[in-house]
Amino acid sequence: MGKSCSALLNVNRELEGITEYFAPYVIAGVNDHLVKIAKIKGDKVPWHHHENEDELFYIVEGELLMEIVDEDSFYMRQGDLFVVGKGISHRVSSVEECLIILIETNTTQHTGNVSCDITRTLGDQFKKQQ
Amino acid sequence: MGKSCSALLNVNRELEGITEYFAPYVIAGVNDHLVKIAKIKGDKVPWHHHENEDELFYIVEGELLMEIVDEDSFYMRQGDLFVVGKGISHRVSSVEECLIILIETNTTQHTGNVSCDITRTLGDQFKKQQ
Repeated sequence: MGKSCSALLNVNRELEGITEYFAPYVIAGVNDHLVKIAKIKGDKVPWHHHENEDELFYIVEGELLMEIVDEDSFYMRQGDLFVVGKGISHRVSSVEECLIILIETNTTQHTGNVSCDITRTLGDQFKKQQ
Repeated sequence: MGKSCSALLNVNRELEGITEYFAPYVIAGVNDHLVKIAKIKGDKVPWHHHENEDELFYIVEGELLMEIVDEDSFYMRQGDLFVVGKGISHRVSSVEECLIILIETNTTQHTGNVSCDITRTLGDQFKKQQ
């Protein structure tokens, strides 16, 4: 961020502007980490992992099914926070619309080691959705 | 975090367990950053800055007065997010109880360049409050 502050923003209001599912949008940076918001509905996220980076999930609204390889899957609900450790295969899905915050490094590919039809470049993740 | 995930936790429930004001409590780590929760009530936080680290504030509940040197101060409310850039002098206060999430690196001193009676070591910030 250099020697400046971010703009003040409201996460819920920013989420209202999200029009695409599975399309993370960067709302802030803190050091070398990015804060992203996303709407999830459906099961388009493939199993994937991030070789060297943890990934934080926080639920703003709705219910997210978190699946972790070799572990029991579980639902995350409003206010729930979970960090997927680096290298661990996971996928998320949601039957109804779910609003989330993601925190990951500015080098993290959001679908990790897998490229698929929802994969967006980091540059795309800075673009306001129409 | 190594090759493991965090525990699933609920931020609101964790905040219920906070008994001290101005005493950040670490609830998760994501790479070299820590997610902390805190209750703020009063104006005990001194003007301070973090020489090399940005600091993220997110309001879970209540109203936080954010003061930034040489800028207009402003109130943050539920769902608001703001990142104080590295090196920028700031302080926060609240008339009524305010519940917040902080995200900062695992090297950040929460009162920055200033040591005062609310300053807690990073070790203390991992200890469950009684």
